[in-house]
Amino acid sequence: MIKLKDLAERLGLSPTTVSRALNGYPEVNEKTRQRVLEVARQFDYRPNASARRLATGRAGAIGAVLPTNRNLLVDPHFVEFLAGIGERLVEDEIDIVLSPTTGDDEMASYRRMAAGTRVDAIILSSPMVDDPRVPLLLKLGFPFVIHGRTGEKAAAHAWLDIDNEGGFRHATNHLLDLGHERIGLINGELRFTYAIYREGGYREALRSRGIEADPRLMANGTMTDEFGYRATQRFLAEQPPPTAIVVGSMMLALGAFRALRSAGLELGKDVSIIAHDDVFPFLNADRMVPPMSTTRSSIRSAGTRVAEIAIDLLTGHPPARLQELWPVDLVIRGSTGPAPGR
Amino acid sequence: MIKLKDLAERLGLSPTTVSRALNGYPEVNEKTRQRVLEVARQFDYRPNASARRLATGRAGAIGAVLPTNRNLLVDPHFVEFLAGIGERLVEDEIDIVLSPTTGDDEMASYRRMAAGTRVDAIILSSPMVDDPRVPLLLKLGFPFVIHGRTGEKAAAHAWLDIDNEGGFRHATNHLLDLGHERIGLINGELRFTYAIYREGGYREALRSRGIEADPRLMANGTMTDEFGYRATQRFLAEQPPPTAIVVGSMMLALGAFRALRSAGLELGKDVSIIAHDDVFPFLNADRMVPPMSTTRSSIRSAGTRVAEIAIDLLTGHPPARLQELWPVDLVIRGSTGPAPGR
Repeated sequence: MIKLKDLAERLGLSPTTVSRALNGYPEVNEKTRQRVLEVARQFDYRPNASARRLATGRAGAIGAVLPTNRNLLVDPHFVEFLAGIGERLVEDEIDIVLSPTTGDDEMASYRRMAAGTRVDAIILSSPMVDDPRVPLLLKLGFPFVIHGRTGEKAAAHAWLDIDNEGGFRHATNHLLDLGHERIGLINGELRFTYAIYREGGYREALRSRGIEADPRLMANGTMTDEFGYRATQRFLAEQPPPTAIVVGSMMLALGAFRALRSAGLELGKDVSIIAHDDVFPFLNADRMVPPMSTTRSSIRSAGTRVAEIAIDLLTGHPPARLQELWPVDLVIRGSTGPAPGR
Repeated sequence: MIKLKDLAERLGLSPTTVSRALNGYPEVNEKTRQRVLEVARQFDYRPNASARRLATGRAGAIGAVLPTNRNLLVDPHFVEFLAGIGERLVEDEIDIVLSPTTGDDEMASYRRMAAGTRVDAIILSSPMVDDPRVPLLLKLGFPFVIHGRTGEKAAAHAWLDIDNEGGFRHATNHLLDLGHERIGLINGELRFTYAIYREGGYREALRSRGIEADPRLMANGTMTDEFGYRATQRFLAEQPPPTAIVVGSMMLALGAFRALRSAGLELGKDVSIIAHDDVFPFLNADRMVPPMSTTRSSIRSAGTRVAEIAIDLLTGHPPARLQELWPVDLVIRGSTGPAPGR
């Protein structure tokens, strides 16, 4: 098969010009482009990823595993995160390779990606406290960055996480300041590190006021509207029921809100809610009625920064800070108010 | 690490046969395949993408463009569709390559994908009536399948679409049967074919009862909760306001529902709503209060079938039916009732 260099030679053009012409860049005039296309067709030239990789030593792609039967995919976070990654990669024409996997063979997917030559770095999502993917990639010596953290304190690899512990402590403290004492928590599954940090922040705030966390007011499950509804219904059946709930996602909050309405309770008066918001463009906390108080951090921006760290890793320029912990804002709106009777 | 060539030598087979055996091609008999697998395991052989491509002439990946600034990404549909694609591809260890693009250089991204050797087929989403991507890919002779349809009547390429026209006609007819005469439509942007089909079905149902569609009761925008809220508020300010609304997505429906509540109106009594539901696991129409009447089609199943068509195309076994139009169910629940005064 003819190579870019040979093609450029035949045309009397630089390889860069030929490459631009083939890729339809406006810098190359139409007449030249037509000539390039014609000769490229004539010699059946196909620029290929392998050729590019051989020339630059890189695949020009970042990999992620796409679990087709895991909780990651029952929520819309992943697409916002992907969009954020894409925003950064588009600048460098780097692709995202998603390797689909069922839960059972996830490790094999990582092994295959690391052993192959299709990607230069891997992005890990939804890390668990004891996450077997991390020692595997460390052992294989393959560049990776985690969105989130494992339980390892002195991890020597790149990650970007939001301060889930601080955010949920802050939210719980705010509710305590408003006089709430029975405060519920609707959280993710505890095998994920973020859910552990969130519960930690919640417990710590309660403990600082001498309140023991009540397991009957804590629920762990998937980030669905339905789980938010069921957990809230369960909480409301307790004696005494909570006067406030800290909720792990906007989807959960929709369900929680619905359960309150069904029970004839008013949000922000009878029961206060603070929800974590990854800032979805399709669901605006500020536009709800009443507007939702939130702990807030853009998952899209996180995707962009994670992509940037991945690029730094793959180009052999490790970033100055390998590990970043982003603060979480607390935005108070109408869904929170003083405890009833205060 | 052992290479394909070495592995083939040890087995006394050609590299092509070994690769085919590893990739499960039917040309290789089962006994040979088992022997190849055994020796491959023994020497811990891992096929890499380039080697596999050289041997089979295929990349083992399907491509899609990931627009980082388009409406496609402000809604959660894309991840459900991806999950559906992944469900099918995982069987054959085929990857998804997402090529990020800003809106401006989208065509260049397709050109690059088709000219390169990183993917074997392309999946197009959110087709427009006059979609320049289709003639481009036809001209380049690159295999592709569209999720949705362009405006072309006699298109000679693969697509899978849902019957948006039939679904929205059915929904509107049902509301007409309930005595509603002022029926609104909250729809997507009209540059997308699906939005045109939906409006067509709505108009046709009205026309069949001698009712002229009222532009003041029609809104086109992005599939966000906020747009649903604003459009419904606008409709309610009309004289006379609508007594029913057909809504293009569950996200829009959340906003529409909220606007009704803000106006002190009861869903299913004062105003009926039928929403289109792509069947999200994180937002269950049946669990709403009242449960939402929907036109219904699983976007995840569509992803799985589109992936299957793509595989058929890339293996040179075009499917028996290149074009599929899936029916849309109408599921009546509590959000629809007789027109007030009936």
